[in-house]
Amino acid sequence: MKKMAIVLAAGQGKRMKSKLYKVLHPVCGKPMVSHVLEAVRGASCERSIVIVGHGADAVQSVLGQSVEYALQAEQLGTGHAVMQAKSMLAQEDGVTVVICGDTPLVRKETVEAMIALHLQQGAAATVLTAELNEPSGYGRIVRGANNGVLRIVEHKDCSPEELAIKEINTGTYCFDNRKLFQTLDKVTNNNAQGEYYLTDVIGILQSEGNSIVACLVEDPSEAIGVNDKVALGEAERLMRRRINAGHQLNGVTLIDAEHTYIEADVTIGADTTVYPGSLLRGRTSIGSDCVIGPSTELSDTIVGNGSTIRQTVAEGAEVGEECNVGPFAFLRPGTKLGRQVKVGDFVEIKNTVIGEHSKVPHLSYVGDAVVGSNVNIGCGAITANYDGYNKSKTEIGDNVFVGSNANLIAPLTVGNGAYIVAGSTITHNVADNDMAIARERQVNKPGYAEKLRARARARAKKDRETD
Amino acid sequence: MKKMAIVLAAGQGKRMKSKLYKVLHPVCGKPMVSHVLEAVRGASCERSIVIVGHGADAVQSVLGQSVEYALQAEQLGTGHAVMQAKSMLAQEDGVTVVICGDTPLVRKETVEAMIALHLQQGAAATVLTAELNEPSGYGRIVRGANNGVLRIVEHKDCSPEELAIKEINTGTYCFDNRKLFQTLDKVTNNNAQGEYYLTDVIGILQSEGNSIVACLVEDPSEAIGVNDKVALGEAERLMRRRINAGHQLNGVTLIDAEHTYIEADVTIGADTTVYPGSLLRGRTSIGSDCVIGPSTELSDTIVGNGSTIRQTVAEGAEVGEECNVGPFAFLRPGTKLGRQVKVGDFVEIKNTVIGEHSKVPHLSYVGDAVVGSNVNIGCGAITANYDGYNKSKTEIGDNVFVGSNANLIAPLTVGNGAYIVAGSTITHNVADNDMAIARERQVNKPGYAEKLRARARARAKKDRETD
Amino acid sequence: MKKMAIVLAAGQGKRMKSKLYKVLHPVCGKPMVSHVLEAVRGASCERSIVIVGHGADAVQSVLGQSVEYALQAEQLGTGHAVMQAKSMLAQEDGVTVVICGDTPLVRKETVEAMIALHLQQGAAATVLTAELNEPSGYGRIVRGANNGVLRIVEHKDCSPEELAIKEINTGTYCFDNRKLFQTLDKVTNNNAQGEYYLTDVIGILQSEGNSIVACLVEDPSEAIGVNDKVALGEAERLMRRRINAGHQLNGVTLIDAEHTYIEADVTIGADTTVYPGSLLRGRTSIGSDCVIGPSTELSDTIVGNGSTIRQTVAEGAEVGEECNVGPFAFLRPGTKLGRQVKVGDFVEIKNTVIGEHSKVPHLSYVGDAVVGSNVNIGCGAITANYDGYNKSKTEIGDNVFVGSNANLIAPLTVGNGAYIVAGSTITHNVADNDMAIARERQVNKPGYAEKLRARARARAKKDRETD
Repeated sequence: MKKMAIVLAAGQGKRMKSKLYKVLHPVCGKPMVSHVLEAVRGASCERSIVIVGHGADAVQSVLGQSVEYALQAEQLGTGHAVMQAKSMLAQEDGVTVVICGDTPLVRKETVEAMIALHLQQGAAATVLTAELNEPSGYGRIVRGANNGVLRIVEHKDCSPEELAIKEINTGTYCFDNRKLFQTLDKVTNNNAQGEYYLTDVIGILQSEGNSIVACLVEDPSEAIGVNDKVALGEAERLMRRRINAGHQLNGVTLIDAEHTYIEADVTIGADTTVYPGSLLRGRTSIGSDCVIGPSTELSDTIVGNGSTIRQTVAEGAEVGEECNVGPFAFLRPGTKLGRQVKVGDFVEIKNTVIGEHSKVPHLSYVGDAVVGSNVNIGCGAITANYDGYNKSKTEIGDNVFVGSNANLIAPLTVGNGAYIVAGSTITHNVADNDMAIARERQVNKPGYAEKLRARARARAKKDRETD
Repeated sequence: MKKMAIVLAAGQGKRMKSKLYKVLHPVCGKPMVSHVLEAVRGASCERSIVIVGHGADAVQSVLGQSVEYALQAEQLGTGHAVMQAKSMLAQEDGVTVVICGDTPLVRKETVEAMIALHLQQGAAATVLTAELNEPSGYGRIVRGANNGVLRIVEHKDCSPEELAIKEINTGTYCFDNRKLFQTLDKVTNNNAQGEYYLTDVIGILQSEGNSIVACLVEDPSEAIGVNDKVALGEAERLMRRRINAGHQLNGVTLIDAEHTYIEADVTIGADTTVYPGSLLRGRTSIGSDCVIGPSTELSDTIVGNGSTIRQTVAEGAEVGEECNVGPFAFLRPGTKLGRQVKVGDFVEIKNTVIGEHSKVPHLSYVGDAVVGSNVNIGCGAITANYDGYNKSKTEIGDNVFVGSNANLIAPLTVGNGAYIVAGSTITHNVADNDMAIARERQVNKPGYAEKLRARARARAKKDRETD
Repeated sequence: MKKMAIVLAAGQGKRMKSKLYKVLHPVCGKPMVSHVLEAVRGASCERSIVIVGHGADAVQSVLGQSVEYALQAEQLGTGHAVMQAKSMLAQEDGVTVVICGDTPLVRKETVEAMIALHLQQGAAATVLTAELNEPSGYGRIVRGANNGVLRIVEHKDCSPEELAIKEINTGTYCFDNRKLFQTLDKVTNNNAQGEYYLTDVIGILQSEGNSIVACLVEDPSEAIGVNDKVALGEAERLMRRRINAGHQLNGVTLIDAEHTYIEADVTIGADTTVYPGSLLRGRTSIGSDCVIGPSTELSDTIVGNGSTIRQTVAEGAEVGEECNVGPFAFLRPGTKLGRQVKVGDFVEIKNTVIGEHSKVPHLSYVGDAVVGSNVNIGCGAITANYDGYNKSKTEIGDNVFVGSNANLIAPLTVGNGAYIVAGSTITHNVADNDMAIARERQVNKPGYAEKLRARARARAKKDRETD
C-alpha cells in the first residue's frame, strides 16, 4: 500500500509578526515543516508534496530536492490547497496523509497509528483527533452510532450539545488517495469565507456512505498548531521536554531538563551530566562520562569521553577524550584538542590543532596554529596571526614552554623543547631546545615610586582645580 | 466622573524578612507599589493617595512627587488606613479605587472594567472578586438574589456552605467617594482584633440599601498579594510571563520565555531572538533582527538593528547596527559602538567611542578612549588609562593597527593610519602613518632551554627533599 | 521506645543506564540514600541498617562508618532484603522504619508523623500511603471498617473496585521490630516472581489479628521512587523547590526559584538576592545583603555580607565583606579576598590572599601570591608562578601599583609602595617605594606604517595568486 503525504505550507502566518515565513520558524533548531516531514517520512510516506504559497522560494531553498512542491498561488482554503497536488497525485493508489506544516509536534508513531487504523477499518478518511479540556475554537468531532465520525462541526456552528464535545479535529488526516481527489472536485466555496474547506471532503464522503474513522491521539499537545510566537515558544518547550526525556532514558543526567536546550540531532553518551543553561546545537555529539555546563553552548562540536566543558562557547570544534575546558573558554571552528588537553579560563582557540597533554591555562589566544604535545602556553601568551591583511601560521613543537605574555608573531616555527621567555615578542623561528628571549633588563630606581605618585597627585589636583 | 485611587502601603511586611519596606520590593525590576500605581493611573485615576506608615520615608523617596501621601502612624486596620485620606478626598465627587500596594499583578484593564461595571450598575461599592479552586483563608463573596453582593464573610467566620464558595474578595474595591468616607465614620473596632475593617463599609452600605456589585476578574492570579518571598517569586514569575507574552505577540522570538528576564520598560523589535538565561533591564531598548544571548545581561543599553550580543554584560552602553559582541564581553557605561563594530571575547570597553568597522577581537581593555573607524586592536592590547590617581584619555585615529599585547599609556594620541608594533609599550604620541615600536630584539640561545629545565628540575627535586 | 531504620539499597537500578550505583545518584548535590538517612535520623532513629547488594562497596565508601550494613548477596525481594538485618536487629525492642534508598523526598517530619501514629494506634505495622490522581502501577490500600489497612493489593491483582482506589502504598513502613522479624520467617516465595515480599508481612500480621495502620502523607510527591533519570530529574526539581522555598521564607530573594540551584547544605543570609542560572554548591555560605549571579557558580565558597558576585565561578574561595567580583571572574581554591576587594572581569585568582581595598580590575592572573592592601594590579598584569616544574610565590606589599601587562616572575618580592612600570617583566625583587622598569624605549618611524601595509598587501596578493 503506497503512502503519500501532502504538507500544507502556503499560509502567510501574519500573527508571527515576522519576515521569516511561518513554517520555517525553528523549533529546537529545526524548521517546523522539517519536523512535520520527518514525521510523515518516519511513517513510511514515500512521496511528500509540500503546498507552498507565501514564501515559496524560501521554503524550497530550505527543503531542497528532498520533497516535491505544488504552488498554491492564491490561498482559497485548505481544500483548495490540497487540490494543488492533484496533477501530481490523483492517479496514485494508496493512502495520503494531509498535515499542516505548522504542527511540529505530531510524532511519526502517531502518523503510523493513524494510517494503521485507517487501513484496518477500511476507511475512506481518518481524522486525527484529540481530547481537550478547553476545546473552545476547535472543530468538534461528532461520533456516530458505530463510533465512526458522523461529522466535524466548526466551533461557531456548534449547538450547545456539540459545544460540550471535547474531542476536536487536529487538522491532520489520512485519506484513500483516489477518493480524496474525486471528492475534492465536489467541494464548493459556498460559505461565508468563500473558501474551499478540506473538512467538506469528510462530510461528502460520509454522506456517500463511506466510513470515516477518528484516531484519537493520546497526548493532545501533539495537535498544537503554531500561529504566533507564544505558541512557538510553547511548541519549543514541549519538543524540548520530549528530546530531553529521550536523553534521560538513555542515561544522561540533566540537572534541570526544563532549562537544558538540546537540539533535535544532538547525540550524548550515557553517564554524561549536563548542567542547566546549556545549549547543545546542530550536529553536536558528546561522549560518555562527560560533564557539560553550566551555561555552555556547543554548536557542531564533537566531545570525547570523559571530558569536562563548562561556561564555554564552542563552534565547530573537536575536543578529545578527558579534556578539561573552561570556565570561560571560546573554541572556534577548526579547533582540535587531543587527549587530556587543558584549555582554561579566558582562552580563545581558533583553527588550531593542539597535541595531547598540552595546556593553555589562562588568558591566551591561539589561532591558526599547530601545537605539539606536552606544551605549556603561559598565561597571556598570544599568537599574533594577523597583520591587517594576512592570517599566518604558528607551528609549535612538542614539549615547548611559552612564557607569560609572550607574543608569537606569525609566521613562526618554534622547535621541540624550545623555551620562550616570559614577556618576549618572538619574530624569528626558534630551533629545537633553543631558549628565545626578547626583553629589556630590569632597572630599579630607588624611591622613584614616590616621585611618580607625587607627580600623579599634582596632576589630579590641577585637574580638580581646572574643573 | 472624577476617578481617584487610595493605595494601601503602610503595612510592615514582617514575613518578607527584609530591611526593605514591603511594597518597595521589585517585581520585574519595578517596586510592587509602582506596578499598582501604573494600573490605577492607566485606568484614568487623576489623584493617587498612597497611605504610608512603616517605611514612609523610603516609599516617598522612591515614588517622589508623582503621588500624594497620607500617613497612617498606627496600623489599626484597612478601614483606618483609608480614613487617613479623608481630609484630602472626602469633599470630592467621583469614584475611588481602594487597592493594596502589594498586589502588583492587578492590570489597568481590570481596574477599568471594575470602574465601568461600578458606574453602569450605579453601585455604591464594587468588589473585585476572583474564583479560586482553593479559596481557603480568603473572605468569601455571598451573592444575593439579584446577583449583587449580600456580604463578605471572613474565612474564619464562614458556615460550611460559605466555606464551599469559591468566589473570594481580592481586597481591591471601588466606591462612590462621598459614600465611602461617610460610611467609614460608622465603622467601629468592636471585633477580636480591635481593628477598623474596610469590609465593614460594604456591610453598612448594603444594610442601608445601597447596591454592592462584584466584578469577577478573569485571571485569578491578578489577585495575588505578596506577603513573603515565596509569593514575591511567584508574582515575578507571573509578571514575567505577561511581559514576555507581550513581546512574543509583537514578533520577538523567545526560546524559553520562562527563563528570559525582561523588565517592564524594555523595548524589543520584531524578529529579534532572545536566548535563555538573558536579563534585559532598566531602559534597555533593542532593535529588530538582533540575536541576544544566551546568558546576556543588558542594563540601560541601546542596541541597533541586526546586532548579535551573546554571553555578554553591558551597562549603559550603545551598540550600533550590525555589531557583533561577545561571547564574554563587558561593555561598561559610556561605551558607544558604531556600525558593524566587532567586540569579541574577553574584552572590556569603558567610556569609549569606537568608529564603524573597527574590531577589538579578543583579550583587550579599551577605556576612556576615542577609537576611529577601521581600526584593529590586536589581541591583548590595552589602554593604560590609570596611574593610580588620574584617568587619562587615549585617542586613536582611523585605520590604525595596534599589535598584540601592546600597551597604550594614556594620555596618548595615535594618528590615522599608524601602526603599533606588537609587544610595544607606547608612551609618546604617534603621528599619522608612523610605525611605533618599543621592544627589544630577539636573541636565541642554542640549547639553553635544556639548561633552564635542568635548573628547574633540580629546584623541584630540592623542594621535594626539603619538604 | 527505641527507633531503628532499615534502608533498602541493594537493587541494581538498570533503568538508570549508569555505571553509578542507583542510590548514589545525587539529588541537589547529595546521594539519594543520604537524603533518606537524614530523614530517618532526623526522626530519631538510633540505628540505621543499610541493606547493600549491587555496588555494596561503592555505597559503603560513600556512607562510611555512620551507618551499619547488611549484605543482600542475591536480590530475592524486599522481604528477603529486610531479612538480612535479622541478626543485627531481631533482638531489639522498638519500632523499625523500613524505607527505600531511592525515595529521597521523604521528609523527616513525615517519618516522625508515621512513627507517632504507629505508636499512638498501638499498631503492629504502619504503612505510609499517598493519594495519587493516577495510581496506576502502584499497590492499592484497601481500608477496613475501622479505617485500618485490610490489605495491600498489587496493581496487577486489583479488582475493578480496587483499581479505583487512589490511596497507594509508598513502600515506606514502620513495624513493631520483634513482630517484623517473627513474621518475616513466615513469608514464602510462592508467587509468580519467586520473591519474598515485604507486603506479605502486612497480610500475615493482619490475618493474625494485629492492627495495621495507614499514615497518609499530605504531599504525594514525597513518595516518588527514582527508577530512571526522568524521575531523577523530577526528584531534583521537587527537592530544589523545597530547598529554595526555605531560603525564600528566610528572607532570601530568588528572582526565579525554578532556575536557581542551591544544594542542600548551603546557607544564605537575609536580604541577599540570587539571580537566575546560579549554582550554589557544597558547603557554600553566603552572608546578608549580597547580590549573587546571574550565572554564578560557587562551590565550597564563603562570601561576606554586602558582596556582589556575578557571572563568576568560585571554588574553595573566601570573599570578604563588600567585595565586588566579576562579571567573568574565576576564583580558585585558596583565594582569600579581604574587605572591599575588587576582582573584575577576566581575572583568575588562585591560592592567593589579597588585602583590603585592593583591586584586580581586568585581564589578570594572580596565583600563589600574597597581595597587600590598597594595591592596584594593572590590566593584563600576570604573576608568572610556573616554570614548567615549580610553582613559586609572589609577595606584593601594601600600596603597590603594578602597571598594565607587567609580568611578575616568581619567586618575587615587591616592597610596600613600589611602582612597576607598565609592560615590564620583573625578575628581581623590588624594594619599598622603588620604581621598577624593564622595557625598551619607543621609536617612531615616520611613514613606515604604509610600508608595512604595502608589504602585507603584497603578500596577501601573492597568496591569492598562488592559491
